[in-house]
Amino acid sequence: MRKPGRHFLQIPGPSTVPDRILRAIDQPVIDHRSPEFGDLGRRALEGIKTIFGTDANMIIYPASGTGAWEAALVNTMSAGDRVLMCETGHFAWLWQRLATRLGLQPELIDTDWRQAADVAAIEARLRADSSHEIKAVCVVHNETSTGCTSDIAAIREAMDGTGHPALLMVDTISSLGSVDYRHDAWGVDVTVGGSQKGLMLPPGLSFNAVSEKARAASVAADLPRSFWDWSEMIAANATGYFPYTPATNMLYGLVEAVDMLHEEGLEAVFARHKRHAEATRRAVTAWGLEVLCRVPDHYSPVLTAVLMPEGQSADVLRRTIHTEFNMSLGNGLGRLQDRVFRIGHLGDFNDLMLLGTLSGIEMGLARAGVPHERGGVQAALDFLSQTPDAAKAERAA
Amino acid sequence: MRKPGRHFLQIPGPSTVPDRILRAIDQPVIDHRSPEFGDLGRRALEGIKTIFGTDANMIIYPASGTGAWEAALVNTMSAGDRVLMCETGHFAWLWQRLATRLGLQPELIDTDWRQAADVAAIEARLRADSSHEIKAVCVVHNETSTGCTSDIAAIREAMDGTGHPALLMVDTISSLGSVDYRHDAWGVDVTVGGSQKGLMLPPGLSFNAVSEKARAASVAADLPRSFWDWSEMIAANATGYFPYTPATNMLYGLVEAVDMLHEEGLEAVFARHKRHAEATRRAVTAWGLEVLCRVPDHYSPVLTAVLMPEGQSADVLRRTIHTEFNMSLGNGLGRLQDRVFRIGHLGDFNDLMLLGTLSGIEMGLARAGVPHERGGVQAALDFLSQTPDAAKAERAA
Amino acid sequence: MRKPGRHFLQIPGPSTVPDRILRAIDQPVIDHRSPEFGDLGRRALEGIKTIFGTDANMIIYPASGTGAWEAALVNTMSAGDRVLMCETGHFAWLWQRLATRLGLQPELIDTDWRQAADVAAIEARLRADSSHEIKAVCVVHNETSTGCTSDIAAIREAMDGTGHPALLMVDTISSLGSVDYRHDAWGVDVTVGGSQKGLMLPPGLSFNAVSEKARAASVAADLPRSFWDWSEMIAANATGYFPYTPATNMLYGLVEAVDMLHEEGLEAVFARHKRHAEATRRAVTAWGLEVLCRVPDHYSPVLTAVLMPEGQSADVLRRTIHTEFNMSLGNGLGRLQDRVFRIGHLGDFNDLMLLGTLSGIEMGLARAGVPHERGGVQAALDFLSQTPDAAKAERAA
Amino acid sequence: MRKPGRHFLQIPGPSTVPDRILRAIDQPVIDHRSPEFGDLGRRALEGIKTIFGTDANMIIYPASGTGAWEAALVNTMSAGDRVLMCETGHFAWLWQRLATRLGLQPELIDTDWRQAADVAAIEARLRADSSHEIKAVCVVHNETSTGCTSDIAAIREAMDGTGHPALLMVDTISSLGSVDYRHDAWGVDVTVGGSQKGLMLPPGLSFNAVSEKARAASVAADLPRSFWDWSEMIAANATGYFPYTPATNMLYGLVEAVDMLHEEGLEAVFARHKRHAEATRRAVTAWGLEVLCRVPDHYSPVLTAVLMPEGQSADVLRRTIHTEFNMSLGNGLGRLQDRVFRIGHLGDFNDLMLLGTLSGIEMGLARAGVPHERGGVQAALDFLSQTPDAAKAERAA
Repeated sequence: MRKPGRHFLQIPGPSTVPDRILRAIDQPVIDHRSPEFGDLGRRALEGIKTIFGTDANMIIYPASGTGAWEAALVNTMSAGDRVLMCETGHFAWLWQRLATRLGLQPELIDTDWRQAADVAAIEARLRADSSHEIKAVCVVHNETSTGCTSDIAAIREAMDGTGHPALLMVDTISSLGSVDYRHDAWGVDVTVGGSQKGLMLPPGLSFNAVSEKARAASVAADLPRSFWDWSEMIAANATGYFPYTPATNMLYGLVEAVDMLHEEGLEAVFARHKRHAEATRRAVTAWGLEVLCRVPDHYSPVLTAVLMPEGQSADVLRRTIHTEFNMSLGNGLGRLQDRVFRIGHLGDFNDLMLLGTLSGIEMGLARAGVPHERGGVQAALDFLSQTPDAAKAERAA
Repeated sequence: MRKPGRHFLQIPGPSTVPDRILRAIDQPVIDHRSPEFGDLGRRALEGIKTIFGTDANMIIYPASGTGAWEAALVNTMSAGDRVLMCETGHFAWLWQRLATRLGLQPELIDTDWRQAADVAAIEARLRADSSHEIKAVCVVHNETSTGCTSDIAAIREAMDGTGHPALLMVDTISSLGSVDYRHDAWGVDVTVGGSQKGLMLPPGLSFNAVSEKARAASVAADLPRSFWDWSEMIAANATGYFPYTPATNMLYGLVEAVDMLHEEGLEAVFARHKRHAEATRRAVTAWGLEVLCRVPDHYSPVLTAVLMPEGQSADVLRRTIHTEFNMSLGNGLGRLQDRVFRIGHLGDFNDLMLLGTLSGIEMGLARAGVPHERGGVQAALDFLSQTPDAAKAERAA
Repeated sequence: MRKPGRHFLQIPGPSTVPDRILRAIDQPVIDHRSPEFGDLGRRALEGIKTIFGTDANMIIYPASGTGAWEAALVNTMSAGDRVLMCETGHFAWLWQRLATRLGLQPELIDTDWRQAADVAAIEARLRADSSHEIKAVCVVHNETSTGCTSDIAAIREAMDGTGHPALLMVDTISSLGSVDYRHDAWGVDVTVGGSQKGLMLPPGLSFNAVSEKARAASVAADLPRSFWDWSEMIAANATGYFPYTPATNMLYGLVEAVDMLHEEGLEAVFARHKRHAEATRRAVTAWGLEVLCRVPDHYSPVLTAVLMPEGQSADVLRRTIHTEFNMSLGNGLGRLQDRVFRIGHLGDFNDLMLLGTLSGIEMGLARAGVPHERGGVQAALDFLSQTPDAAKAERAA
Repeated sequence: MRKPGRHFLQIPGPSTVPDRILRAIDQPVIDHRSPEFGDLGRRALEGIKTIFGTDANMIIYPASGTGAWEAALVNTMSAGDRVLMCETGHFAWLWQRLATRLGLQPELIDTDWRQAADVAAIEARLRADSSHEIKAVCVVHNETSTGCTSDIAAIREAMDGTGHPALLMVDTISSLGSVDYRHDAWGVDVTVGGSQKGLMLPPGLSFNAVSEKARAASVAADLPRSFWDWSEMIAANATGYFPYTPATNMLYGLVEAVDMLHEEGLEAVFARHKRHAEATRRAVTAWGLEVLCRVPDHYSPVLTAVLMPEGQSADVLRRTIHTEFNMSLGNGLGRLQDRVFRIGHLGDFNDLMLLGTLSGIEMGLARAGVPHERGGVQAALDFLSQTPDAAKAERAA
C-alpha cells in the first residue's frame, strides 16, 4: 500500500534534501573540461571553504564520506604509524578499524559511549609519548552513534600544551553545516566531511580540508594512494578542475547548498540546531526516558540518542513507527544495538517538522507498548513556543 | 532570510503536491496530435472517471476550477434561466455571482454559513415551483469557506421525490479525491472538479462530469460558449485527443495522481481524511475554541474552520504562524473575514504532518496571545495513537 | 520499443521546454494569498509586459491559448457585433468560428492561405463601413497553419488612415517571444498570447494585453462573462494577486522564461528565428520543394510550411519521420490537410537542433519515397556556416 | 549571453543524461537501512549484472570510475606484484600510473595509440613468463582517448592457450552499455565500469564485477584497503544493503537506466552504436580527414577520434565549435593533445542528434578555417537514410 504524505526521514543523516537542491542536481551534465565547468568548480571549492571555516586547501571527492576518512589517513601516514583515536562511539570505532586495515596502529582511548572525547586522556597520552611515536590524533566531532559532540578547540589547546607534533584529524561528517566548526581557527590539520548531513545533499561527495602541516606530512607519507591523493587534486583545483571525472551534478547541488546556508546565516543555522536539540531532550525527559549522552556540555545539536527502558527493544519500536507513522529513526549501532534509537534533527529542518517527528515517537511508544509518560510533545512544544528562534529575535530587535 | 525546512501548506487547497506528481509533470511536452498523446489522453480520461465515480462523459479543461463552474452553466442554461443555489458559504456565493454575470437568475437558499445545504428547503422550493421554472439546483459538495459537507445523495432523493426535472449540479472542487463522491450512483447531472485539492496536482486543470440528461440539455441551451463547449470536447476525446491545445504536462500529473489514489485505495483515502478531521476537531475543542461547522453530520473531512474568540483577529494569528512557524493557513472569506482560520488536512497528508500542523497552531496561539488552553496537540495525538487507520487495521485483520 | 535519444518536437508549438523552465515549474505550490505569492505575481505581471511591449494592463489566464481568444471578444463585444477578420489560414478561421459561436457576426476577408493579411482589403472594408458597424478588426500575427506573418504596424496605419474607430485585436500566440511585437507602439487594443510557443513554457497560460480603449469598450460590452472578465483581474493584479486560483507553477516558469529571453536579448532572439527560417527555406528549395508562403515579405520566422509534390501525402511522410527518426512535424490543417507539413523552428532552439531537424526531413523524404533532390541539409548548413548569428557578430565587433 | 537550445554534449562521456534518469534521481533520499532500501539495493545489484553479463558478484561503489580501477587492483594484488598492461592510449597509461602509485610493477605493452590491444604480444609475454610473475593482465576494452576497441574474448583465449594463471582485468568504463560485453562468457576476472557513459547516468557510481578466481585472489592480496574492500560489500549486498552510506539517488537512476537499456534491447543498443560510428567515419572521410584508429576491426562504436590536418590545432577547432555552435567535443589527451578531437556518439543518442553533431563539426571546420571538403554530413545522412536501424528492420520483418 502507498503510504500517503511525506516520509519523515529522521535518521541522523542522510537528512532530507530540500527541493531547491534536488532541482539544482536535476540539470544536464556538462563537460568537466569546459570553461563553464571551471566556473562551477571554483564556486564549489570556494563555497565549501566557508562552511569548513578555512582558507586552506579543500579536497572534494566524488565518493561518499567513508572515503574521506581513508583519504585523511593514506595521504598523511606511513605503514605502521601509530594514531591516537578516541572511541566516542561506533563511528570512531569504525574509523579505527579502517586505520587498522590500512596498516596503521591505532590506539584507542575508550569511553562509555555516553560522552564526548576525553580531552585530559588525550593530553596525558601525548605527554607520555615523549618519543613522538603518535603521528596523529583522530577525533569524531559529532559522534553520530551516540549524540555526543567533542570540544575540538579544547583538544587543540591540550595538544598545543604538550608540544606534541601529532597531526589533529577531525571527522565532521555529521556536524558540518549544523554545528559551529572552524578548521583554521581551531588548528585542525585534516577535517573530514560528507555531503549528506548538514549540507543537505544526497550522499556522494566527501571532503578533506588540509592544513599546510598536513600537506607537508603527505610528502613523506608512504601509504600507497592514487584515487585519494591530494597533490594532483590541489594542482587541478587551482583552475577549478579535477584530475578525474568529478560528480558534476552533485557539485551543482553543493553550490546551491552553500548559498542556502548563507542565506539563512551560519550562526542562525547553528542556533536552530541547538534549539531543536533542547526541545527534543525535553520531550525525552517528559516521556520518562533517558538521553544517552550523560554530559550536558556534550549534547549534540544534530541528533539525540534515547535509551530504551530495560527489556524494551528499540528496533521493535522503530519498526512500529516506520510501519504505522511513515518515519525512519536511527538504530542503535555496535554495542548499542537495539538499546537506543536515534532522532535526527539536522539539516533542512524546522519547528513543525520536529514536532511532527516527536509526535511520531510519542504515538509509537504507545502503539509499541513501551512504558512511558505522555506529554513529551507538549514539553517540546511549550519550550519552542516560549523560546523564539534566537536569530529571528535578534533580527527583530 | 531563508526559512529552513518544508513549508506547511495547510490551506484547504491547493494542497501539497507530492514529489511523484511534480516529477511526472517535469517531463518534455509531446505533440498533442501524436499517437503517444492519444494514449496519454485516453489514460487521463479513463482514469479521472474512476475518481468521479462515473461512466459518463468527462470533460478535462486546461483551465483552473472557476472555469469549470462557468462551463457547467454555459453548456446547460439559456439566458435568464432560473437556478436554485444553496448559500453554504463563500464559494456557493461566488458561484451564484458567476451565474448572475452569465445572465442567469440564481435564487439563493441561505444558511448561517455554519452548516451544509438545507435539503428540506431545496425540496420545498422545488415543490413550490410547479411551473418548473427552476432549471438547475446547484450545490457545493464541500464548502471550502466553512468546512461543511452537504449530503448529495439526500438532495438527489429529495429532488426525485418532487418529480421536478431540474438538473443537479455539484461542485466537488475541494472534495474530489478526499471525500466519497459518486456522480452516477447519486444521479448528479454535472459535477465540477479541480486539480489542486484531493487530486494533489497544481492548479491548472478542471473537470465536468456530464450525465446524458445534462448533455441533452446542452443542445437547447443558448448561452454563448466556445472554449467551454462540451460537444467538440466529447467528439475529440473519443480517441484521446482535444479540440485545442491541452495542458499536456498537467495530464502527465493527472495520470500519476489517479494511480496514487488507487494504490492507496479510495476507501482508505476517504477514511484517512475523516480520521484527520476528527483529530483536528479534538485539538480545537481542547484549545477551548469552536469549530465553525455546528452540525456534526456536516463536518468536512477536508478542512476545519475555527472560530476565533471574540475580539481576536484570525489574520493576525495567521500572520504570526506564517512568519514564526513557516505555515500557511486558510483565511476567513466573505462575511467570515478575520473571524475564522481554516486548517486544510487534505491531499497527500499523514499523521505526522497533521500533528506538525496542529503544533504550529498551538504555538501560534501562544505567540499571538490568543486566549486558549494548552493540550490540543496532545488530544489529537492521543486520538490518533488510539485509533489506528481503519484501512490499515482492516488489512492487518 | 523505447526510442533512444531526445525526441525532436518540431511542430510549431508547443515548443521544446528548456530544462531551466521545467525545473522552475517543478517547485512546491505556495499559498496564492501569501505575501510570497504577491512577489511572484508582480514579477510575472511586470515581466510579461516586457515581452508584449506594453505598459498597459496584462491579463494572465490560468487557461490555454484558445481561452484568450474568447476573452478578447467577450470583454469587448456585444451580441451581434460585427467583427472584421482576415482568413490568413486555419487559426484565423477558427477564431472566426469562435466569434460566431459567441453570437458575433464575423466578416472574413479571405486569402489563398499562402500569404499574410491583406492590408489594403482591410483598409477598403473599413472605409466602406461609414456607419462604423464593424467593432473590431482581428488579425493573426503569425498564422501557424501557413507560416505567413502579417504586418501589424501597417494594419494599424491603414486603420488610422480611415479614421475608423474599430478596435484592433491581434493573436500573437505563435509569434510572441519569437518575432518582434509591440503592443503599445503599434497601437494594438487587445493582444492575445499563449505560453507554449516562443515563451518556451508548457501549454496552460494565456494572455490578453489590453489598451485603455479596449478597457473602455469592455464597460459597455454586454456579452456574458465571468471567468474571462478583465475588471476583477486588473483589480486583484494591482497587488500581484488573482481573483481565483492561478496556475502557480506555470507562473514560476513564466518568470524564468522572461529572464531567459532577456538574458539572450530580445533582438538576438528575433534575429535567431529569422536566420533559422532562412536556412530552412534554403533546404526546402534545395530539395526541390515549395514553401507554402509565396510572399517573401510574409515569411514566418517561427515555422515553415512545405507543400508536398503533387500526389504525395504529407501525413505519410510525417508518420515515416515520426516512426523512423523520432521527430514530430506539424500537419496540414483544414484545407491544407495532408498537403503540407510544417517545420517549427521556434523557442529554445539552435543551429545544431535545426540541422538535426532538417536531416530528419531529408532522410524521411528518402525513406518515404517522396521525389526530391538531396542537399537540403547541405544548403542550410552552408548558409548557417557563412552567416554567423547577427547578434553574436555584433557583440564580437 | 545565454546560448539558446540544447547543448550538444558530444564528448565520449559523460554522455547526455536522459530526462527519465534525471527525474528518477530527483527523488527524496531514503534511509539506507530501511526495508525499502533493501528492495532498491537488490534491484540495482541484480539489474547491473545483466549489463555486465555476469552472475558473479557485482560491487557498486559510491565513487566515480577511477576509484573502480583502484579497487580492482587493491583487492587482488600485493605490494610489488607485476601486472601486464597494454598501452592502448591515455587511459591505459593512467591505469598503469595508478598501479605504479599503489606500489605494483606494471609492465606496458605499447602501441602507436592507433589500434587496440595487441593480443599476440600479450600471449607472447605470458608464454615468456614461465615463473608466473605476472599476476594480472589489464586491458581497456574501449580506449576512450583513441576510439579503438580491444577484443577481450580473443585475449582470454590467448591467455588460456598459454595456461598462465594471471587474472584478466578489463576496464569497460566507456564501453559498458554501448558495446557488447560479457564478463562471464569471456572469462574476465575483474571488470571495471562507471556510470556516466553507456549507462547514461551522471558520474558518481562505479563498478567491479568479480569472478570467483578474483575473489579467491583477494584473500591473499596484501595491499591495504578498506573503502574499496570487496568482502564487506559482498556480505552486505546479499540482502541489498551496503556497509557504508551508498549514493542512494544514483541507485534510483541506475535502476531506471537498466530498465531503459532492456526496453530498447541490448542487441539494439549495440547495433545502434555501431551504425552511428559507421556514419561518423563516413563523414570524417568525406571531409578528407583521417580517423585515428587505423585498424577497421578495432573501430570503436562509442567514439571516433579524428586527426587534424598537419599544422591545425584541434583545440582551436573545439573552442570555435563550443563558442559558435554550443557543442562540446572531446580533446586530445596525452601525446594526442591538440592533434585530435574526439566525437562521442554514445549513450542516449539517435540519428538526428548525430547529424546535428556532425553538422556542428562541418560548420566548425569552415568557421575555424580548417582545410576540408564539404559533404561529410551528407555522407553520413545518406548512409543512415539507406541503412535502417538493424533492430527496427528485424522487428518490422
